[in-house]
Amino acid sequence: MIKSEAAQERLLDLALGLYRQFQEGVVPHIALPSRTKNNIEYSSKSDVWVYGDQETLRSVKTVRGAKTLLKTVHLAELLIKEHLKNNRGSTLREIYYISENWDLAKFHEQAESDRLIEDLEIVTSLQREDFHVRPEEDGAAVFGPLRLREETRRGSREMHCQEDVGEAGYQIPFNVETVQFLEHDAKMVMAIETGGMYARLIENGFDEEFGAVLVHLKGQPARSTRRIIKRLNAELNLPVVVFTDGDPWSYRIFASIAYGAIKSAHLSEHLVTPTAHFLGVQPSDIVDYNLSTDKLTDKDMHALRSELSDPRFNTAYWEKQIKLQLDLKRKAEQQAFAGKGLDYVTKTYLPERLSEMGLI
Amino acid sequence: MIKSEAAQERLLDLALGLYRQFQEGVVPHIALPSRTKNNIEYSSKSDVWVYGDQETLRSVKTVRGAKTLLKTVHLAELLIKEHLKNNRGSTLREIYYISENWDLAKFHEQAESDRLIEDLEIVTSLQREDFHVRPEEDGAAVFGPLRLREETRRGSREMHCQEDVGEAGYQIPFNVETVQFLEHDAKMVMAIETGGMYARLIENGFDEEFGAVLVHLKGQPARSTRRIIKRLNAELNLPVVVFTDGDPWSYRIFASIAYGAIKSAHLSEHLVTPTAHFLGVQPSDIVDYNLSTDKLTDKDMHALRSELSDPRFNTAYWEKQIKLQLDLKRKAEQQAFAGKGLDYVTKTYLPERLSEMGLI
Repeated sequence: MIKSEAAQERLLDLALGLYRQFQEGVVPHIALPSRTKNNIEYSSKSDVWVYGDQETLRSVKTVRGAKTLLKTVHLAELLIKEHLKNNRGSTLREIYYISENWDLAKFHEQAESDRLIEDLEIVTSLQREDFHVRPEEDGAAVFGPLRLREETRRGSREMHCQEDVGEAGYQIPFNVETVQFLEHDAKMVMAIETGGMYARLIENGFDEEFGAVLVHLKGQPARSTRRIIKRLNAELNLPVVVFTDGDPWSYRIFASIAYGAIKSAHLSEHLVTPTAHFLGVQPSDIVDYNLSTDKLTDKDMHALRSELSDPRFNTAYWEKQIKLQLDLKRKAEQQAFAGKGLDYVTKTYLPERLSEMGLI
Repeated sequence: MIKSEAAQERLLDLALGLYRQFQEGVVPHIALPSRTKNNIEYSSKSDVWVYGDQETLRSVKTVRGAKTLLKTVHLAELLIKEHLKNNRGSTLREIYYISENWDLAKFHEQAESDRLIEDLEIVTSLQREDFHVRPEEDGAAVFGPLRLREETRRGSREMHCQEDVGEAGYQIPFNVETVQFLEHDAKMVMAIETGGMYARLIENGFDEEFGAVLVHLKGQPARSTRRIIKRLNAELNLPVVVFTDGDPWSYRIFASIAYGAIKSAHLSEHLVTPTAHFLGVQPSDIVDYNLSTDKLTDKDMHALRSELSDPRFNTAYWEKQIKLQLDLKRKAEQQAFAGKGLDYVTKTYLPERLSEMGLI
């Protein structure tokens, strides 16, 4: 995590920039990359999707623009004076409420303050965690052969994620930059969509047998969860596989880990693991493993078709799998393997898939 | 937790009962309390709502009834042979999939298997945790002056819920009967609806200053969360206060902790904390603390009116508060206190409310 002083400095730079524009008689403004699907492009340098060159200008030329900049400055002041100077923090929701004392700069809804915080991330090239801004709910849990140290407000805590935690695992804090990886005996990271499968793998001792650090995604993963996966990959050089249900919504979970999202393209380099592999459930597994399935709904079909035109899924692999699923008109959950016995997933399916993928 | 052998015995008793009915030429059947709003009554012995005397008969007289009993017997066999004999477990979802090998007894949807598991809880007077059945997602988190020991599959783990956990706290396992409370320095348990407020109280050191064990409810609390609150209350003799948003849905969260739910009235004695107090946000706080509010929606108004006729809210306190809120037509979130400064909730609101309630 960047130090408080450095974060303060970047925020002050923003204020200084506006101040200078006033002094020089220029209409005060901030330039931001435009955050639309058209302005997202592939960075071959870092293997992730990032914003392109299109810019939006926030200027005080209009009343609306002036109000937005006023809010931005109030927000920067809060982050500097309350958060960084005092080593405090707030949730996104709390910030929305705090603004009620800002008179004309009061936020009308939380979406507005959330967006401005993202703007500040972009302008400063920092992450909201650097400003001590946290989401409502924290991240998910980790279980596996990994020893780590978390710097908490109450002091340093050292934990082994199998030996020093309960059966539910180590709870990821909202800001994983406070976590340092000390040592590990892992061969891979497996990110798992459902709590049921996470518990199944722990019960079956999969983490021990295959040296897997299991990360419970809890559905669409929080930023802290994506960040810890990225760090496990980058710092420990561990391959990452993603194990979800076999439906279009789950492919988007994978995409958010491996390719990032338009909304947070400015954070791609921090949050995205471009080498993450999709393990399953693949549409072809439905056939190969004769899985128990449900019929695709119209919404599912629509989501699959829209994925076919999503640049993130523009690969031969995804085209084949998505088209197969559109033909099958069926979807399967990861827990469907239970129909073949409680050990089938850990003794048969996962070893077969990992070996196909060249990971074991 | 009841030992595996005892749980097996109760399930075998069920099978034996059916077997004897066959032998004696009686049409095999199982009697269950009827699970409707009309058959729920107050037990002054244990201060919780329980099922009354009305019974439903499940008999094989009809094809449908016969199928249900067949499913029940298959399910009991799974729990005995796979779970209890081998010390294994499954999620509710996995059980639904496992049934695909049961031919005529295959469940058509998960709601069906969930209901039969509840039936088995009622018939055996046990909890599904005793059968090693777990939900999809596990419980919430705990932070406070409490040392506990959890018996995990990998051995015994001893943890202090301030000193040995990260900033996100101790993650409650799905089966809290594996947890033993060792020692504590607490004066109360505070159950908190949102992650944002839970993090606020930890950041502000409220747990240390007031000797509070903080329990994050994560919205409508899971069974494991309600169970650990009940056990903290019953075993450590700690008062329990519930701190939620000020809207009808949050009052139902409180009600599920303090009064139980119709669906799980058979578990009231295990899950319900009748002495739990509602701390806030109270409708009267909206006025007294001049909180930032939102307008009640039609759905909110409807929910409030339906609470007025719910026996669980049939007290002078709730009648006054709910009627006041219907007049105000406003609701407030617990994070609204942030508008008065980051310390207001821990330095002003909570101490005032706790002192009104005679707890400090």
